[in-house]
Amino acid sequence: MAGNSFGKIFTLTTFGESHGEAIGGIIDGCPAGLSLDFEAINAEMQRRKPGQSAIVTQRKEEDEVKFLSGIFEGKTTGTPIGFLIENTDQKSKDYSHIRDIFRPSHADFTYEKKYGIRDYRGGGRSSARETACRVVAGAIAKQLIPEIQINAFVSSVGTIFIDKPYQQLDFSKIEGNIVRCPDEATAQRMEEHIKEIRKQGDTVGGTITCVLQNVPIGLGEPVFNKLHSELGKAMLSINAVKGFEYGSGFCGSQMKGSDHNDIFNTDGTTKTNLSGGIQGGISNGMDIYFRVAFKPVATIMQNQKTIDSEGNNAIAEGKGRHDPCVVPRAVPIVEAMAALVLADFWLLNKISSIKNNGS
Amino acid sequence: MAGNSFGKIFTLTTFGESHGEAIGGIIDGCPAGLSLDFEAINAEMQRRKPGQSAIVTQRKEEDEVKFLSGIFEGKTTGTPIGFLIENTDQKSKDYSHIRDIFRPSHADFTYEKKYGIRDYRGGGRSSARETACRVVAGAIAKQLIPEIQINAFVSSVGTIFIDKPYQQLDFSKIEGNIVRCPDEATAQRMEEHIKEIRKQGDTVGGTITCVLQNVPIGLGEPVFNKLHSELGKAMLSINAVKGFEYGSGFCGSQMKGSDHNDIFNTDGTTKTNLSGGIQGGISNGMDIYFRVAFKPVATIMQNQKTIDSEGNNAIAEGKGRHDPCVVPRAVPIVEAMAALVLADFWLLNKISSIKNNGS
Amino acid sequence: MAGNSFGKIFTLTTFGESHGEAIGGIIDGCPAGLSLDFEAINAEMQRRKPGQSAIVTQRKEEDEVKFLSGIFEGKTTGTPIGFLIENTDQKSKDYSHIRDIFRPSHADFTYEKKYGIRDYRGGGRSSARETACRVVAGAIAKQLIPEIQINAFVSSVGTIFIDKPYQQLDFSKIEGNIVRCPDEATAQRMEEHIKEIRKQGDTVGGTITCVLQNVPIGLGEPVFNKLHSELGKAMLSINAVKGFEYGSGFCGSQMKGSDHNDIFNTDGTTKTNLSGGIQGGISNGMDIYFRVAFKPVATIMQNQKTIDSEGNNAIAEGKGRHDPCVVPRAVPIVEAMAALVLADFWLLNKISSIKNNGS
Amino acid sequence: MAGNSFGKIFTLTTFGESHGEAIGGIIDGCPAGLSLDFEAINAEMQRRKPGQSAIVTQRKEEDEVKFLSGIFEGKTTGTPIGFLIENTDQKSKDYSHIRDIFRPSHADFTYEKKYGIRDYRGGGRSSARETACRVVAGAIAKQLIPEIQINAFVSSVGTIFIDKPYQQLDFSKIEGNIVRCPDEATAQRMEEHIKEIRKQGDTVGGTITCVLQNVPIGLGEPVFNKLHSELGKAMLSINAVKGFEYGSGFCGSQMKGSDHNDIFNTDGTTKTNLSGGIQGGISNGMDIYFRVAFKPVATIMQNQKTIDSEGNNAIAEGKGRHDPCVVPRAVPIVEAMAALVLADFWLLNKISSIKNNGS
Repeated sequence: MAGNSFGKIFTLTTFGESHGEAIGGIIDGCPAGLSLDFEAINAEMQRRKPGQSAIVTQRKEEDEVKFLSGIFEGKTTGTPIGFLIENTDQKSKDYSHIRDIFRPSHADFTYEKKYGIRDYRGGGRSSARETACRVVAGAIAKQLIPEIQINAFVSSVGTIFIDKPYQQLDFSKIEGNIVRCPDEATAQRMEEHIKEIRKQGDTVGGTITCVLQNVPIGLGEPVFNKLHSELGKAMLSINAVKGFEYGSGFCGSQMKGSDHNDIFNTDGTTKTNLSGGIQGGISNGMDIYFRVAFKPVATIMQNQKTIDSEGNNAIAEGKGRHDPCVVPRAVPIVEAMAALVLADFWLLNKISSIKNNGS
Repeated sequence: MAGNSFGKIFTLTTFGESHGEAIGGIIDGCPAGLSLDFEAINAEMQRRKPGQSAIVTQRKEEDEVKFLSGIFEGKTTGTPIGFLIENTDQKSKDYSHIRDIFRPSHADFTYEKKYGIRDYRGGGRSSARETACRVVAGAIAKQLIPEIQINAFVSSVGTIFIDKPYQQLDFSKIEGNIVRCPDEATAQRMEEHIKEIRKQGDTVGGTITCVLQNVPIGLGEPVFNKLHSELGKAMLSINAVKGFEYGSGFCGSQMKGSDHNDIFNTDGTTKTNLSGGIQGGISNGMDIYFRVAFKPVATIMQNQKTIDSEGNNAIAEGKGRHDPCVVPRAVPIVEAMAALVLADFWLLNKISSIKNNGS
Repeated sequence: MAGNSFGKIFTLTTFGESHGEAIGGIIDGCPAGLSLDFEAINAEMQRRKPGQSAIVTQRKEEDEVKFLSGIFEGKTTGTPIGFLIENTDQKSKDYSHIRDIFRPSHADFTYEKKYGIRDYRGGGRSSARETACRVVAGAIAKQLIPEIQINAFVSSVGTIFIDKPYQQLDFSKIEGNIVRCPDEATAQRMEEHIKEIRKQGDTVGGTITCVLQNVPIGLGEPVFNKLHSELGKAMLSINAVKGFEYGSGFCGSQMKGSDHNDIFNTDGTTKTNLSGGIQGGISNGMDIYFRVAFKPVATIMQNQKTIDSEGNNAIAEGKGRHDPCVVPRAVPIVEAMAALVLADFWLLNKISSIKNNGS
Repeated sequence: MAGNSFGKIFTLTTFGESHGEAIGGIIDGCPAGLSLDFEAINAEMQRRKPGQSAIVTQRKEEDEVKFLSGIFEGKTTGTPIGFLIENTDQKSKDYSHIRDIFRPSHADFTYEKKYGIRDYRGGGRSSARETACRVVAGAIAKQLIPEIQINAFVSSVGTIFIDKPYQQLDFSKIEGNIVRCPDEATAQRMEEHIKEIRKQGDTVGGTITCVLQNVPIGLGEPVFNKLHSELGKAMLSINAVKGFEYGSGFCGSQMKGSDHNDIFNTDGTTKTNLSGGIQGGISNGMDIYFRVAFKPVATIMQNQKTIDSEGNNAIAEGKGRHDPCVVPRAVPIVEAMAALVLADFWLLNKISSIKNNGS
């Protein structure tokens, strides 16, 4: 009931604060007999980890995953997969100055008020450090559904946008630059902008677009657990996310039905895809694409006026390490959450009809 | 596991197809001792029901709710509340022409492929008729948390937008026009536009903005069940919704941290509210506001090329009754889903800390 | 979270009080494409309904099930199955005399204290009338897993026991007498005993034994949702149940390991079956058998000293209709709950391993 | 959906095999602000750990719990509590001889068939080693509800029974002997019997009685999640358990209603307590008592005929370490599971009625 589990069948539960000894999780419900590619898991962790390039936080974490159960001779056994990631670069001392300070637009205030107690060391549970566990589980989920291609990329940083539809992009170039933008010219402009923002001790927001291809028809469980409802929830649960749209999204709200309807080809595909690969909450076999909006992260390298826990005026000092722009590192997190949603529905769909495997 | 339940503690499960004898639901987890205002429930139903004005579908349904259990002498008893709404205007005959037809941008194709069988009568389960049950439960949820004000309104129809922040609007005017737009001049333009669209046999999309006021601090269960994640899921589960944003939303992704951060007043409120009343997934006591994008509904009064279930070319005929623009009727549905999310978290929050009621 | 749902995948949620207008439920998660045998469902209802013989309550209920959704042209559609059973013989007047009385060993006191309000009309939600909904869902669950034989029977009434192992009984004789005991001589003694008890205005307890045959290997989800844990929970949730044992049960606690262990045959079956068909919480393909203890029902036709809601001495009058012995009517309920547990695990097992249907 | 989580609000999820590096778990939903007594937690672990006396397995495990999150300055923070227990005495080599052997009445066969793969090292997930995690969580649950007294004790070993009602026993003597039987003369006979059984290389079953005192009125969530249904499920999920009864239990099935009904005193207590402190699935404030039957553990120090995974005849060798009688060590496990059930319902009950904390 507490909110630290995700997924109905392929279920991830996570624990851990940014400055405890370790974070970790349990994956319960991964089918037995799945051969795991540990290098692939590690590669995903490397994509998310701090310190990987000049435009992300310089916190140093190896982010090595230690699996403790549920795997035998390289295969999943059907029992819960427990895993740990140590916090090697905790630097608790850094945070004594914020012990009683509510940092603006952080979760300090709300955690304190909700729980009456708060681990003030660097964000505690509300830190994005927790998303490392999601990437572990997402990497395993991806391996369960290898036929589905999941590609996320940075589609905007501040006001710098890719001005092409995703079909014109080459996804193999996403990892070719540190911004994770497949359009090279735009990537260059984004990178420069982030470096400039960083110099100012400021941060900037952005958007990530994610494309899911070769998704089998039938994923999604209406009327509440529609495929896009769960994708939306998954994305909105990522730190700093402020919005989600799929298919035609907010633009679609300005259109007419006669323009928006996707006309069928005789093979069941559609000529256009404003629907975004989902009808009635169920995948229709077309590409699923969605866009996620991230606010600028709240930690800036500037002093800000704020209050302490007694309601006195105080200063939130602009020091420490931070991400000037969170979206490059959020790309693997978006993919991981998408993979978790897909794996869950993929398993559920196997028992939705007698004609599948229901008999 | 199937997806017809919503909420962890205050749980609504619904059933019913648009053209069966009745639809209905069960609310499990409503606390005992709540005095119900049945007129208020009925008023919400009237806001959603078809045929209420010139710009909505002319299907005639009284949408009277019959409560069957869980209520005794006007109060909830803590046992499940079962309720029914009859489908009085079924007109099954109307739908024989679409028996084997996949209507463009409807759920016909995906339901058929997922389940291998489909109740072809007018959308069946995928029809928005199901949302009547959500309005019943939402109306009860509202009564559980009367201190919270929930106001949704139409903020755009097609390209016609309200050009003021919500703080300058008078929510008491929402019900003053058939579009449910509190800005009268804009409402007039919207109404004219919808009538024009209707004449064309077409449909148009729009957006709804919802404002939650006087929300207690502490609602939301990180890290997955954040308040805005569940609001997002709730909204995305409504028929025709393509996007959700809260607080600064997609615009926020273009901003800098130094502009976006909300600075505290000494009483814990904030000077600005780009956060949208939620920090770290937990309500902070400021107004919560979000925006929901609706596509133009797929049923248009024009013939469209399509295919039948054998993959043959076919014509989807443009006849029957439909909503030229869904957003006016969706206003109470958005409010109902918001109420369900709030009631659930409000109950959960009572046991989140020893200092509340956890001891 | 409230406790009116059962099952993770094949989920039944019920509502309704004994003296409301109707009771009913929603089955969510039944796979699509299942052809329903409505006569079989009705037959199960007839087995449970009151008034069927001289030794059960004379309350008259037709217990006709009205299905409202989720079924189309005789097949399940994958959408939720809503159903209703009307309470035709409510006789609310009968209960005015117990309005403020706490009947001994009834749930009047605990419902009043827990919820602060109580529908005093004849047990309300705590009445066994609610189990009619379980029988509906169980009858459908049985049809999902037709290969599994589920046979429950009365194995004792008071101190009258069947003194043979179940293997020596002919299950086809269970319905051959009104006690539902397949051993005819014992059945006769039981019937006479119940009639005698009835004359005394008293009630008597009993046990039901249930045998599940041809259960596929692999059902059960350790470590908490073991097959026998869920069977136990299911049985203990039935009104008046005080105990559950499976396989060697309480007798097994007196044995030595060298006597208790079941030695394998080379085909994987075992020579003995003290395990009761379950090892480590998972079915092993042998017969599953368990025994359920029912207390004597609390409603007796004798005046009893008791208290009212103010704590004053009062008399609970011995009048109305009642079951002198509940076990004959509980036989189909035990089977229904077993079917619900099996159907749920049967579906879950399809996705537990890549080698099954997990890939 | 997989079965490794227990509890709806106060939720424990566990992972780990007997011969992996570590076992552990996550407690999600423990209210914030609870001051933890770590010595008390450790004391419970000591009660369960192997090697503590002459009559239990000589496997050596320190069973030290390492908490990784959710606790700050000695108090719970409302975030998930992650914890680890290392397996220090793994001795994987010991198990090579059973790699392809299905041990009689063990879970080897069913895990292999269900999952298609099995960690053959000493029981893997099906080992009772997993219950150490339950004891950790149970110890915390006990601290959440300190007003409730939870006392379990060994009431029988083989055919040696305590022949007194629990009211005549002195619970402070439970820990006074290595059998955990509060009746000293009986304890002595039990101890001798277990030592004799051990000499024979055999094992013996037994029963545990558990008494819950000072339980608040109102715990339990009918109709499926009754207090005794969940207690039953909890107990049946413990390794080697074959039966559960509460209150009058199986004996109650032989009684008449006029003898079985508990007559009220004017203060709402009852003169007798055959009900076992629960009416209609809800606690009534009287003592709750139940009895749990354990089979003799399957690992015996005798060679047994069996089969290998190919269906060939084989010998399961009687070597290694084992518990000749499991019940003394199971006492803290029974208490832990009872505490988990009570804590969960205690939290849920706070939101069941407006008159409690529902408003």
